[in-house]
Amino acid sequence: MKFKAHINIMPHKELLDPQGKTVTKNMAGVNVDGVHDVRIGKRIEMTLEATDEANAKSKVDTACEKLLANLIMESYEYELETLA
Amino acid sequence: MKFKAHINIMPHKELLDPQGKTVTKNMAGVNVDGVHDVRIGKRIEMTLEATDEANAKSKVDTACEKLLANLIMESYEYELETLA
Repeated sequence: MKFKAHINIMPHKELLDPQGKTVTKNMAGVNVDGVHDVRIGKRIEMTLEATDEANAKSKVDTACEKLLANLIMESYEYELETLA
Repeated sequence: MKFKAHINIMPHKELLDPQGKTVTKNMAGVNVDGVHDVRIGKRIEMTLEATDEANAKSKVDTACEKLLANLIMESYEYELETLA
């Protein structure tokens, strides 16, 4: 079976996000007011083959934990879409 | 009113995504097989004040077009959540 995983990897809420802070400050420069908090993470879309949904989840978890996310600073969540 | 925008910024489908290609190749190193295609973009979460939903959308569009996304190489989409 073929699956598509839509993965969001965000910095932990407790951590400062310097890139997000900088973007928040720069909103004034493009005339956008009222922006309080910007947090910037990664969005990953991944197509994979797996025997079933449980197998696909296990693969996505391994990929996130060992390669894509740094669990000390980031947390991940994902949605799995069945393609065929 | 307060809104939260959940923004996804991804490289255009027609473009090579070298970061994604590298990650695809490295899946073997963490014993994950069957991964065909990985595309890596940005996930941005932004809290903002606006008078109504149309105003909030207009602010998020401006922020994406002028600051967050590079529309030559990336496209964006977002969901708007009403906080209060």
